[in-house]
Amino acid sequence: MSVDWTSRYSRRLEWMTTSIIREILKSAQSPDVISMSGGWPDASLFPVDKLGELANYVMEEQPAASLQYGVTDGYIGLRQQLVDFSRENGIHAGVNNIAITSGTQQTLDLAGRLFLDEGDVVIVESPTFLGALQAFKAYGCKFAPVPVDDEGMCIDELETALKETKASFIYAIPNFQNPTGVTMSLERRKKVVELADKYGVPILEDDPYGLLRFDGEFLPSLFELDAALHPENAVASEHVTGNVIYASSFSKILAPGLRISWLVAPPSVKEQFIMAKQGADVQSNALAQAIASEFLRLGYMPDQLDRIREHYLVRCNAMCDAVDEILGDIVTYVRPEGGLFLWLELNCCLDTIELLKIAAKENVAFVPGGPFYTVPGVGKNTLRLSFATMDPDMIYEGIRRLRKAIDACSE
Amino acid sequence: MSVDWTSRYSRRLEWMTTSIIREILKSAQSPDVISMSGGWPDASLFPVDKLGELANYVMEEQPAASLQYGVTDGYIGLRQQLVDFSRENGIHAGVNNIAITSGTQQTLDLAGRLFLDEGDVVIVESPTFLGALQAFKAYGCKFAPVPVDDEGMCIDELETALKETKASFIYAIPNFQNPTGVTMSLERRKKVVELADKYGVPILEDDPYGLLRFDGEFLPSLFELDAALHPENAVASEHVTGNVIYASSFSKILAPGLRISWLVAPPSVKEQFIMAKQGADVQSNALAQAIASEFLRLGYMPDQLDRIREHYLVRCNAMCDAVDEILGDIVTYVRPEGGLFLWLELNCCLDTIELLKIAAKENVAFVPGGPFYTVPGVGKNTLRLSFATMDPDMIYEGIRRLRKAIDACSE
Repeated sequence: MSVDWTSRYSRRLEWMTTSIIREILKSAQSPDVISMSGGWPDASLFPVDKLGELANYVMEEQPAASLQYGVTDGYIGLRQQLVDFSRENGIHAGVNNIAITSGTQQTLDLAGRLFLDEGDVVIVESPTFLGALQAFKAYGCKFAPVPVDDEGMCIDELETALKETKASFIYAIPNFQNPTGVTMSLERRKKVVELADKYGVPILEDDPYGLLRFDGEFLPSLFELDAALHPENAVASEHVTGNVIYASSFSKILAPGLRISWLVAPPSVKEQFIMAKQGADVQSNALAQAIASEFLRLGYMPDQLDRIREHYLVRCNAMCDAVDEILGDIVTYVRPEGGLFLWLELNCCLDTIELLKIAAKENVAFVPGGPFYTVPGVGKNTLRLSFATMDPDMIYEGIRRLRKAIDACSE
Repeated sequence: MSVDWTSRYSRRLEWMTTSIIREILKSAQSPDVISMSGGWPDASLFPVDKLGELANYVMEEQPAASLQYGVTDGYIGLRQQLVDFSRENGIHAGVNNIAITSGTQQTLDLAGRLFLDEGDVVIVESPTFLGALQAFKAYGCKFAPVPVDDEGMCIDELETALKETKASFIYAIPNFQNPTGVTMSLERRKKVVELADKYGVPILEDDPYGLLRFDGEFLPSLFELDAALHPENAVASEHVTGNVIYASSFSKILAPGLRISWLVAPPSVKEQFIMAKQGADVQSNALAQAIASEFLRLGYMPDQLDRIREHYLVRCNAMCDAVDEILGDIVTYVRPEGGLFLWLELNCCLDTIELLKIAAKENVAFVPGGPFYTVPGVGKNTLRLSFATMDPDMIYEGIRRLRKAIDACSE
């Protein structure tokens, strides 16, 4: 008797879902399609020459660090660079607060592994990042969605959720949120950390886009605002404890194919992440860690960030202008101050999953907004556009095709 | 009220253990210690020049494939190369049978995620790879250990385990098993796949060392023997179904820091691995995948393998000779035909965890054997040595120091 595979999977499989994003990654590869769907950075901004140089350099000069097994915490050289890099960006932490992961998706998965039992509740922004929902759902959790308006998470609803659920943690993306592009205001940030502290609930702060700010003023992270609530928790440069796990990544600022992210957490919490990571993949790619470390050490990052910000500002403006001109009468949106995404709400009850089918015929793609919500049926008239990978002309043509699809769909 | 972290972890944390290997990786970094403890390949065998060349080449010529997001299944170029590479090594499979993972530890973790509910049973060789125990335990499973003798897994005990437990799968390392170095005989291999088929239980075949054979004859994998049982399952070059998930890796044949492994499974099973991997880390490092793909495509692997095998043969012989001369009166072992490890059983009831403390004073390190067993207290008088990373003189000196430690411990 051969193996009957379908009968052999764990119960967990019911909780696991395949991501609509994956299908989009596949369909977006046809050259005729103007795809505004991906969460991809622009490949033309990858500093290929510098990365090539550094790859050679680290393999020749540091073959052990770049090719051999290392410690699960991550390459110490990179973690030291991240101490300085974090400080420049307002996060004061020591090397014992920092662990390297294989992309933020892994940070989210490990957080689920460490904090979620079946039936536990995660408080999430509504809408929120699909990949986070996918990561947490694999552990059988439920979600308490808190609406996002143009200043970020709504505070009253957050407090209600904290009161009514024994939430395992709050998951938040304060900068240029995925998918809405919204920036959480300073006032809201302070309220979120105060409420988390009041109810003793951890915050998982996901910040892949924070350094892609091309407009408006820098705002402190939830991590730093929490630290400011409890100055006694910071001893020298290390956070002895605190309520926030901060996650960031090289994916959007350097290259996603490197799969290198990091987290900043109290040392005891970081140690649990490391234990979980040992079982999950032992360590992250050493070559990419060594390259990222040298990239920071040699001071290449400020120029790289300037280049990306300038580029994305032009494209964001082009997309906002095109939307104002072509879709102004039928959509509302919040102008993003950074990141990759523009979030549209249609002023009619069109289902954007249906719209996508029509749009495919017009050779234009986007991400329907519904899947970013944890409640079925909500957000049907929303959609996410990325402005990162196309020049302004193509953006204009993409929005024109989108209008055509909407009009065809509305008939 | 700040977060009380200790009260917030999932129940799963009780099942998760930190690996003794991790502590060893840390302690083995002192230059005075002759460490025979790691499972590390020899860094001097990394083809650094070729890897540097290829890193430059792929970033310049294929920036999207090497630095951008890609599909979760893995870079198609690498998967195509692995179809040919697998065929050369006796595994006939199509591209739809193959998925790339971030090291075999991730393959094991994903297998746990897909197949293990709390309380489920995994049949394992006894002793077996620590990392596998760690990966599976995180899902709350139990183990049914089947003894290994000098021909591999004992068949009667395997059948008893299959009868008495509703095992989720059999985990086996047929080539130069970690930790024992034992090669499963052809007869045993056939019996294992027949029994798995009889009871309808999947096999997870872990083969990181198969290509490091420096002595004896090539033996077919469990994957191929299973395919031979059911020729109707192979359509053209693809395995439509089958009972075996085969896992292998570039860690021991190229460089572990690249964190690139692969699995071969029926397409429906592979798809579930991909779904699980999406939530776990989206995709493996693209740069390393592109480098590995070019390394295979340019035909560099045969020379690389010849070099490694020659090297490890010399070292294995040196270690066996030294053990025969210095420890011959107090240990027994099976001479390995490949891989990295020599497994010693002391002919006395010395506890090798105690021995390690004495050995540390003598500046020599090894891995105590006990943790490789799933039953506490078993295998106390066993230990694992790696011959991979030292030249013959240092191996001799290491064994001499080990003898000194044993004598001191026995007093």
